[in-house]
Amino acid sequence: MPRYKLTIEYDGTPFCGWQRQHGQPSVQASIEDAISRLGEADVTVSGAGRTDTGVHALGQVAHVDLGKDWTPDKLMGAINAQVRPDPVSVLDVALVDEGFHARFSATARHYRFRILDRRPPPALERNRVWWVPHGLEAQAMHEAAQVLVGHHDFTTFRSAQCQSRSPVKTLDRLDVAREGDEIAVYASARSFLHNQVRSLVGTLKLAGEGRWSPADVRAALDAADRSACGPVAPPEGLYLVAVDY
Amino acid sequence: MPRYKLTIEYDGTPFCGWQRQHGQPSVQASIEDAISRLGEADVTVSGAGRTDTGVHALGQVAHVDLGKDWTPDKLMGAINAQVRPDPVSVLDVALVDEGFHARFSATARHYRFRILDRRPPPALERNRVWWVPHGLEAQAMHEAAQVLVGHHDFTTFRSAQCQSRSPVKTLDRLDVAREGDEIAVYASARSFLHNQVRSLVGTLKLAGEGRWSPADVRAALDAADRSACGPVAPPEGLYLVAVDY
Repeated sequence: MPRYKLTIEYDGTPFCGWQRQHGQPSVQASIEDAISRLGEADVTVSGAGRTDTGVHALGQVAHVDLGKDWTPDKLMGAINAQVRPDPVSVLDVALVDEGFHARFSATARHYRFRILDRRPPPALERNRVWWVPHGLEAQAMHEAAQVLVGHHDFTTFRSAQCQSRSPVKTLDRLDVAREGDEIAVYASARSFLHNQVRSLVGTLKLAGEGRWSPADVRAALDAADRSACGPVAPPEGLYLVAVDY
Repeated sequence: MPRYKLTIEYDGTPFCGWQRQHGQPSVQASIEDAISRLGEADVTVSGAGRTDTGVHALGQVAHVDLGKDWTPDKLMGAINAQVRPDPVSVLDVALVDEGFHARFSATARHYRFRILDRRPPPALERNRVWWVPHGLEAQAMHEAAQVLVGHHDFTTFRSAQCQSRSPVKTLDRLDVAREGDEIAVYASARSFLHNQVRSLVGTLKLAGEGRWSPADVRAALDAADRSACGPVAPPEGLYLVAVDY
C-alpha cells in the first residue's frame, strides 16, 4: 500500500483537537472521513503531534496508507474537496516510503504563539491570539526565555496528563519578538511535552509583566515541580507551524 | 452634547454590513445597542463608509453624540464590554468638536484587498481572503492598476445601486504587491463609489491571469459602462484599513 505524507493547515477552533475522540469533532476524524468518501476504507491518518482543542496548524504533518495509487496532486485536490466545510486544508501531498512515520521520523517541531498586546479586544483575530490587555515587555520575555533553551528536565512545564516517558527534552529555540501590537513566541524542539509550549508562554508572560525575573524562571525550571509553573496560556494563540524530517 | 470619534475594528462575516437594516445584524446596530446599554438613549453612530456584507474593517471611523461626558478611555472600555459577543472592537475614542463628521470630514479612505493565491483553499483565513487557486501575476496586476490611478469617470467600476451624485472620482493609489502566497491590493482615495474597490480588484484579476492587458483595462475604464467591468471580487477579501481627516 502506498504511503502518503500530508501537510495540513487547520483552524482548531471547532475541533476537540487533532486526535479522534468518540462523539467529538476532531481534525483527524475530519480528514479520515474525507478520505473514506474517496472510496478508501478504514484509513488511519497518523499525525506528527496531537494538538489540543483550539490549537491551530499551519503545517501539521500526517501519513496515511491508501489502497489505491493516487498521484499526489490529485489526492490533495480530492481530500480538499471532500473535507469541506470543515476548516481544514491539505497544503501538500508527497509519496513517501513505508519507513516514513509522521510522528517517529520527525526531527524538529516548530510552534508559534501569538499574543495580542493591546487594550481593545480582538475582533478580526478572535480565537487566533491570546489577548493580554495590560502591556508586556517583549525584550524581558525574550531574556527570560533564554534560561529555558537547552537540555533540561521540563517537569515544571508539563501537564499532568502528559504521556511522554521522560520529562527531559532539548529546547532548541525560544525566541520572543514584538511585531506591531502582537508579541510572537517561537519555539522549536525535536519533541515537546504535553502543554509545554503553552506552559512556557504562560510563564514568560509573568516575565513580560515584570513580575518574574530570569532568575525566577530558572528557579521554576529547577524546581521540576508542576506547581512552580505560571498559569498556562490558552490554546487559541498556538500554531503548529512546521515539522521537519 | 459632546461628540466622540470612534475607531473600530470588525469582522464583517456575521453582519449585513455597516449600515443598520431592519431585522438584520449590522455593525452600526451592534455598536448603537451597546451604547444604549450604557444608559445613552436614541444614539446614532455615523460611519465614514458603508461597508457591505462580509467586508471587514481594521479602522472604520464613526462619530456619536452622547448625553453624558465620558472620558474617552472609559467610553472605549464600556463599549467594548457591552458589544460582546459581537466581533467588533473599538480601538480608539477621541473627543471631537461638533464640526467633525465621520463621513463628510474625511479626506482619504484606505482599503486593502487580500487575495490568497494558492491551490489549496484557506482554512485559517477562510472569510478573510479571496481564494484564487490558479495563479496570478502580481506585477501584471500592478501595471494594469496604474491605468486606473488618477481623476476619471469610474462608471464602469460602480454598482447599479451606487447613490453617489457623480461617477467622477480621483483614485490616489492602486498598488498591487505579492506578500508570500497572498496578493495585496492597496487602494486610497478621498471617496469611493459603491463596490468600486471590489470592481477594480475583479478587473485586475483578469490582468493577473494574463487575459487583459493594461490597454484592455484602459478601454474598460474609457467605456464608462458597467458591463465592461470584470466580475466583481467577493467581499471577504476587503478591509477598510483607515480613514484620514
